[in-house]
Amino acid sequence: MSDGPAVPSDDVFPDSGSVAIERHWHEECGVFGIFPHPDASHLTYLGLHALQHRGQESAGIVTTDGERLRSRLAMGLVQDVFDGNTLDELKGHGAIGHVRYSTTGSSTPDNIQPFFGNYAGGHIALAHNGNLINADQLKHELEARGALFRGTSDTEVILYLAIQSKQSSATDRIIEALGQVKGAYSLVVMTDESLIAVRDPHGFRPLVLGKVKDAYVVASETCAFRLVDADYVREVEPGEVIEITRDGLKSYFPWGKSTPTARCIFEYVYFARPDSLIYQRNVYVVRREMGRILAREAPVAADVIVPVPDSGVPAAIGFSEVSGIPYQTGLIRSHYVGRTFIEPRDSIRNFGVRLKLSPVHEVLRGQRVVVVDDSIVRGTTSRKLVHLFRKAGAVEVHMRISSPPTIGSCYYGVDTPNREELIASKQSVDEIRDYLGADSLAYLSLDGMRDAAGNHDGYCDACFTGRYPVAVGEPSVAQLPLFTSHPELPVAPP
Amino acid sequence: MSDGPAVPSDDVFPDSGSVAIERHWHEECGVFGIFPHPDASHLTYLGLHALQHRGQESAGIVTTDGERLRSRLAMGLVQDVFDGNTLDELKGHGAIGHVRYSTTGSSTPDNIQPFFGNYAGGHIALAHNGNLINADQLKHELEARGALFRGTSDTEVILYLAIQSKQSSATDRIIEALGQVKGAYSLVVMTDESLIAVRDPHGFRPLVLGKVKDAYVVASETCAFRLVDADYVREVEPGEVIEITRDGLKSYFPWGKSTPTARCIFEYVYFARPDSLIYQRNVYVVRREMGRILAREAPVAADVIVPVPDSGVPAAIGFSEVSGIPYQTGLIRSHYVGRTFIEPRDSIRNFGVRLKLSPVHEVLRGQRVVVVDDSIVRGTTSRKLVHLFRKAGAVEVHMRISSPPTIGSCYYGVDTPNREELIASKQSVDEIRDYLGADSLAYLSLDGMRDAAGNHDGYCDACFTGRYPVAVGEPSVAQLPLFTSHPELPVAPP
Amino acid sequence: MSDGPAVPSDDVFPDSGSVAIERHWHEECGVFGIFPHPDASHLTYLGLHALQHRGQESAGIVTTDGERLRSRLAMGLVQDVFDGNTLDELKGHGAIGHVRYSTTGSSTPDNIQPFFGNYAGGHIALAHNGNLINADQLKHELEARGALFRGTSDTEVILYLAIQSKQSSATDRIIEALGQVKGAYSLVVMTDESLIAVRDPHGFRPLVLGKVKDAYVVASETCAFRLVDADYVREVEPGEVIEITRDGLKSYFPWGKSTPTARCIFEYVYFARPDSLIYQRNVYVVRREMGRILAREAPVAADVIVPVPDSGVPAAIGFSEVSGIPYQTGLIRSHYVGRTFIEPRDSIRNFGVRLKLSPVHEVLRGQRVVVVDDSIVRGTTSRKLVHLFRKAGAVEVHMRISSPPTIGSCYYGVDTPNREELIASKQSVDEIRDYLGADSLAYLSLDGMRDAAGNHDGYCDACFTGRYPVAVGEPSVAQLPLFTSHPELPVAPP
Amino acid sequence: MSDGPAVPSDDVFPDSGSVAIERHWHEECGVFGIFPHPDASHLTYLGLHALQHRGQESAGIVTTDGERLRSRLAMGLVQDVFDGNTLDELKGHGAIGHVRYSTTGSSTPDNIQPFFGNYAGGHIALAHNGNLINADQLKHELEARGALFRGTSDTEVILYLAIQSKQSSATDRIIEALGQVKGAYSLVVMTDESLIAVRDPHGFRPLVLGKVKDAYVVASETCAFRLVDADYVREVEPGEVIEITRDGLKSYFPWGKSTPTARCIFEYVYFARPDSLIYQRNVYVVRREMGRILAREAPVAADVIVPVPDSGVPAAIGFSEVSGIPYQTGLIRSHYVGRTFIEPRDSIRNFGVRLKLSPVHEVLRGQRVVVVDDSIVRGTTSRKLVHLFRKAGAVEVHMRISSPPTIGSCYYGVDTPNREELIASKQSVDEIRDYLGADSLAYLSLDGMRDAAGNHDGYCDACFTGRYPVAVGEPSVAQLPLFTSHPELPVAPP
Repeated sequence: MSDGPAVPSDDVFPDSGSVAIERHWHEECGVFGIFPHPDASHLTYLGLHALQHRGQESAGIVTTDGERLRSRLAMGLVQDVFDGNTLDELKGHGAIGHVRYSTTGSSTPDNIQPFFGNYAGGHIALAHNGNLINADQLKHELEARGALFRGTSDTEVILYLAIQSKQSSATDRIIEALGQVKGAYSLVVMTDESLIAVRDPHGFRPLVLGKVKDAYVVASETCAFRLVDADYVREVEPGEVIEITRDGLKSYFPWGKSTPTARCIFEYVYFARPDSLIYQRNVYVVRREMGRILAREAPVAADVIVPVPDSGVPAAIGFSEVSGIPYQTGLIRSHYVGRTFIEPRDSIRNFGVRLKLSPVHEVLRGQRVVVVDDSIVRGTTSRKLVHLFRKAGAVEVHMRISSPPTIGSCYYGVDTPNREELIASKQSVDEIRDYLGADSLAYLSLDGMRDAAGNHDGYCDACFTGRYPVAVGEPSVAQLPLFTSHPELPVAPP
Repeated sequence: MSDGPAVPSDDVFPDSGSVAIERHWHEECGVFGIFPHPDASHLTYLGLHALQHRGQESAGIVTTDGERLRSRLAMGLVQDVFDGNTLDELKGHGAIGHVRYSTTGSSTPDNIQPFFGNYAGGHIALAHNGNLINADQLKHELEARGALFRGTSDTEVILYLAIQSKQSSATDRIIEALGQVKGAYSLVVMTDESLIAVRDPHGFRPLVLGKVKDAYVVASETCAFRLVDADYVREVEPGEVIEITRDGLKSYFPWGKSTPTARCIFEYVYFARPDSLIYQRNVYVVRREMGRILAREAPVAADVIVPVPDSGVPAAIGFSEVSGIPYQTGLIRSHYVGRTFIEPRDSIRNFGVRLKLSPVHEVLRGQRVVVVDDSIVRGTTSRKLVHLFRKAGAVEVHMRISSPPTIGSCYYGVDTPNREELIASKQSVDEIRDYLGADSLAYLSLDGMRDAAGNHDGYCDACFTGRYPVAVGEPSVAQLPLFTSHPELPVAPP
Repeated sequence: MSDGPAVPSDDVFPDSGSVAIERHWHEECGVFGIFPHPDASHLTYLGLHALQHRGQESAGIVTTDGERLRSRLAMGLVQDVFDGNTLDELKGHGAIGHVRYSTTGSSTPDNIQPFFGNYAGGHIALAHNGNLINADQLKHELEARGALFRGTSDTEVILYLAIQSKQSSATDRIIEALGQVKGAYSLVVMTDESLIAVRDPHGFRPLVLGKVKDAYVVASETCAFRLVDADYVREVEPGEVIEITRDGLKSYFPWGKSTPTARCIFEYVYFARPDSLIYQRNVYVVRREMGRILAREAPVAADVIVPVPDSGVPAAIGFSEVSGIPYQTGLIRSHYVGRTFIEPRDSIRNFGVRLKLSPVHEVLRGQRVVVVDDSIVRGTTSRKLVHLFRKAGAVEVHMRISSPPTIGSCYYGVDTPNREELIASKQSVDEIRDYLGADSLAYLSLDGMRDAAGNHDGYCDACFTGRYPVAVGEPSVAQLPLFTSHPELPVAPP
Repeated sequence: MSDGPAVPSDDVFPDSGSVAIERHWHEECGVFGIFPHPDASHLTYLGLHALQHRGQESAGIVTTDGERLRSRLAMGLVQDVFDGNTLDELKGHGAIGHVRYSTTGSSTPDNIQPFFGNYAGGHIALAHNGNLINADQLKHELEARGALFRGTSDTEVILYLAIQSKQSSATDRIIEALGQVKGAYSLVVMTDESLIAVRDPHGFRPLVLGKVKDAYVVASETCAFRLVDADYVREVEPGEVIEITRDGLKSYFPWGKSTPTARCIFEYVYFARPDSLIYQRNVYVVRREMGRILAREAPVAADVIVPVPDSGVPAAIGFSEVSGIPYQTGLIRSHYVGRTFIEPRDSIRNFGVRLKLSPVHEVLRGQRVVVVDDSIVRGTTSRKLVHLFRKAGAVEVHMRISSPPTIGSCYYGVDTPNREELIASKQSVDEIRDYLGADSLAYLSLDGMRDAAGNHDGYCDACFTGRYPVAVGEPSVAQLPLFTSHPELPVAPP
């Protein structure tokens, strides 16, 4: 069991009239683009559907037929925002799309992506996964030069920088624009004649390139390629700008090839779909390996391994393989808890996790149970789970977390609580264990996580270490969680 | 009966799955603003409701509480776009609102007003009734300076000109912006600390000022004041800029007081509500006078006067008063034909006007009928009406139109067909009469219309005369109907 | 001015979150049927649309293709309940439809008509306009024989009586069923092979027969025939049963031809559309005649006649014709106040009638105004109107009501308030005039109303006289307003 | 590999504009009831939510406050049919609810349950899981006695039999009614003063009793108790009638205790939720045991065990435990494929299972894969899965089905295809294996399934054996799939 800096947490996220049980941080976006293909809008629909786990709040598609843009953007799931008629009306050989999860404060129609419009160079549309560190400063400068910001999204900043560039080609405008921003961005940009894909030099967020017949596709994860029958080509590399036209593909590294990169390691821990390749490795395999290493680092005498579904499954399988303790589905997840589920009356509330997760008593009764989860945020959901397991008859409950304690907020495109809400930022593992009411608690070590990811370098693990690859200045209160540098963990210069 | 150069027209406007019978041109907008009032959003809702006849396609309200803007904009009627919760959430002491009718091509969510955003000077929101002549040229200039246009509305041009102005106050920015535009605009602009109302120097579109307790209200028509219990103060004068702050009202004439003005005379003919004051005259009284003069100009031996409801009613009453022929409600209008009414199957279609207008046979049978309508656009609906009257037993059908033949499109904020679709631009009155199948047809003379309006000067009557107060250059095809100045056609009196 | 038994009334009907200003009683239904026609559902849609004024709460259509029924029933307006797909799915050569207004208490989906189902004799569907006097008693008897009532509508009673009849043909079953009921009913019944139309022996509610090509149509009013291009054939006579099959039409008078009939005279006063023939007379002409007689009975020195739109218009025109006082449109009615219009906040409420009716000051200022309305219910709306006229500058306000005082509730299919809520049941005309704040008030006399209707016999005028053609027993509280016989007006036996 | 009588099947179920991939038969219903509890409607909502897997087409709740019923029934998921307001309006201390999956033909609002109404004995509401064998005959008899059937559901038959009973108490009426029906029924019946729960003497469908404070709850599965914090008391026994009033619970066995029972064994195979107790055994444990026995019956040399999620998971775990071959999550299931998901264009279609199930190549590549599924219907989906596995790199694909071949339709409340559509009714296991393209295929033996279920007697396994516990006569075409008795398998009398 770990005795390092401690951590925990889960969460019940009640929002107006609905119960959403959130144990996790939220990816803020998924992006998709295709060019040129006669069914561009339909394929983008399928691609966004495969990326739905990266953002469920809003969805949008913009298409071009070379002469004008057509768009459909709305709050809701991909399958609710679009229907057959809508997709047919989104004519054109090029399309980009976006799914979005957003922080509560900016959950407005004005922020739905892609952003698009007409400027001196023609039409442009842009979809963005990431977060800029210097957006506020740039916004002020752009306003001083006459920009009007409709929403609060960083994406508008990039769009304005591009259209105000003096470069002649759209690709050069985008390159010039991105030369001024700091932070995380995986971008797809569409003009009437091209699709441009860009990944920031640190490569914070994933972005992959595929091909379906004569068309290129770009997506946040490879799982989007499966559905559109595209072949995986390769990652868009950190710092790479790819321009796709009818003449084919060109690649640029306008800022050189930076080392080391800072790929988000949390994609492996939780965000990405298990069937995706992320940074050229399969997510399921990495997660299973996390469980295997955790079993070696924090063994425990027990009768049964139970994952918290669905994200805890691969690590639980790995833990079972190494420990030899049987793997069982001891928690059943309901597939029917959606946005419209209403909160029970006060008098009958406090069912908490039971709405979504239900224990199988016969698997747990009288057993020493190892519960495997991928991470802990606030600790509240984990605590309820431990209680649920005990009530179902477990005689011992051992929590095993397949990532290290999360001690820092993310400023690179992930919706995280403020640092002080992260239980591991304030409590030791022992304290957290006591709070959860577990018999034991152990986290995967940093080295264990890095081993599972196959590399010790090239990842951003700031949320686990407090070492931020791109220095965060004095962010505006509205935009970013208040950051207090971690005394003993010096913040690295970018 | 007139034999002069003829004109007419009506229209059946089928759009996707619905039948809308349109005999008329469409006003493009109504605007409303109030500052400062604790119930700003609720009063704006009522004001927009009273202005609903000026635009049924979309509605929007933006409010300020001095610190941030809140907005709700959507396609639909005022009462469908807003509900009690929405209005409560639109907090603030200042509000502006807009209702819009738009041409088919630009009927997209991106064009819903008010436009708003954040710029170097703070927050700004803008609602516009009118049309700019030089929007395209300005748009190109602005794009060259880095502007991004999300929709196709002229309003964005004004907004960008304002925020890129070097003036320090919002009012001065607006004044500087408007110094560059040509055309028609009645504007309400809201900042965090003020409400600004502007009417272009020609005064094309109406705009009035009122007061409710300590707050000022601005609206397209006085009928909006009734509903919010505001007192009418006066017209916003052509060329006037009114700035309303917590300190009271200031008036500016930055471009001097121009003469002559060019107030749209078609407001009297059709657009405005009969209970409104327009240009300080009551609309109902002007319309009735049009009917009275028409009765003198084009008398006819007949048994009954029947208006085409509702817009033909006041002139029909006037015609009856002068002619002594009894006024009767010989056409009943259905109140239930809305946007969702579906088109009957082909096999049983062609009911045309019957869906909305139904004849009272007992009033028409065996009678010589004078049908009074306010105008004719394409002639198709009038033709069906004449047929309907004959089928109901009328032995003679005499059409009397309470305005002159419409021979030109409008470029100042009214949605009109291209010139060539206007029947009076191509046919003589005799030809139109024959097309309609009427026994006689007469239009009100230009002088008659001007007499009824109380003035021969100060009006824009370009749609009747082809004399455009602000020269129209080479408008873009998308934006404006192709205009060819009508050199050889001094418009003949009927 | 009348000094007889006094009367009043109008009403503001606030229901959950919406403002509906109701000056009137409510017709409870409109019915339509067609057989056999390949476009049966589409024509029924159009027919119901024309009958929409008879009921706006719910709409339903049931069709037959000879083998099975298809149905669509929902709360809402005809154009909102049906779309093109729905109508296409309602296959079949026969169709009946229904629009409904209901009392608040029974406003549930379970009462939407037509009622339909499968029984020993095959399929049956039934739509009903009217109200039974002995429904409660029959319901108990039917329940004792094993019936299950899903809703609270009388129509289910008729349906059960019919299917439990031992007769072999559907027509005979219906006849036998109706032999047991008392009250008002205009019915359309559909089986797989026939359409049956029935009107009760008193002929309380209207019902007319038409023909379109080889198909017969039946409807509450002739206005429904216009829209489907059907020719008016004749009234379905009181006490008549019409059976329409592919072999043609058969007529029965199973209960003999009763005299006198008791046709609802209020159809002329308010319910029916002005372009309809009701009881073979045109409604507009009758209403105008009511105004003409009223002008003779209750003359007044005044400057202008103003109708309360739209129902007061014909009588106002008649009043103007006889009195020679000019008719003017002094009140403008908004077409945009629908079910979803929200109630203004308390702080800015009490606008009352202004939401729907707006005065034209220039027509009223300094004038002695005669306001013509068709009836008064509670008096509250009339009172607000008088206030509105005075505020608009009228120096005198004279109310003229084109029907006698309403002193009794209706038990024959009209939604009326309890007797004690009718202002005329408790107050004299002078008292009502004082309550309204009018300078004078006069109602049309009973004889005047009967003269206008062309007959003194054959009408039910119970709401004006308290003489009920069919004795009302001890109605259940839920079903009927509490009836207290009018002391001096003995209730006639049926 | 098995060489016994062969069987298979899966299915792609395309319905209007949506893609639903259905590998399974459909349970037709879930029922829930509670009495007496102040939050009856809210708890019923939660209970139905937990039973959502038993029916996703429609949902309904009826409540009683002792004086009247209140109801809400609509097409859709539980969380879409009800919101907080609706539940608050469903006042009362008693409630029953129903979720329903229905066959295509009868998917109409008229069949949504509970059914309810008013009859001689007061109010009654009824919700039903099951199917009657003699419904058609009873329907004809009831029609002959004057019943009217609104929908096509068997439930109306029971309701009519009950209300036409001469018994005085509701419980006795229900008992008398059920004495006449044959087939499967688990019922909850609500009157103003009681809740009655009944299970047919064969006990085809499950029904359990629980307690929450002073109230009793009845539900199809115990998983509904978890969510409402109720304690499991026991099964409602086959042939038992339980009457719950404010005075407590009474139990009756009006038809004696029948042996043997015929509990549906397919609940263990697929229908029930893994965390439920069904027939007093935990579903997860039974399913895992099926996998364990299958591993012994049909071993195979392989590298990895992959379940078809989610229903194949427990058996796959059991198979892995016995075989020692590692269990891996080689197929990822999307949680976002709902009713509104649109079908891709023809040109890009045929993605089939990929929309819902996505392979993890890294788990499958180069491996000999054992795919564990619970059953095969038509075989089409299984065939696509085999192809998917091969395309992902599997070198061998061995299908293992944790139940015997399904050769017969169900007539006891499960929506099954006609016998001839079941691949195993026409093909041998070898033929099916060839059709699927698998390297091997094996089904669990009948004895193996019975061993896993813990008993060889007391189950209905007609779909596997063709031995129907209740003889099926000549069912109407509309109601039941055409049944041909299996030559070599004599149909047992009940």
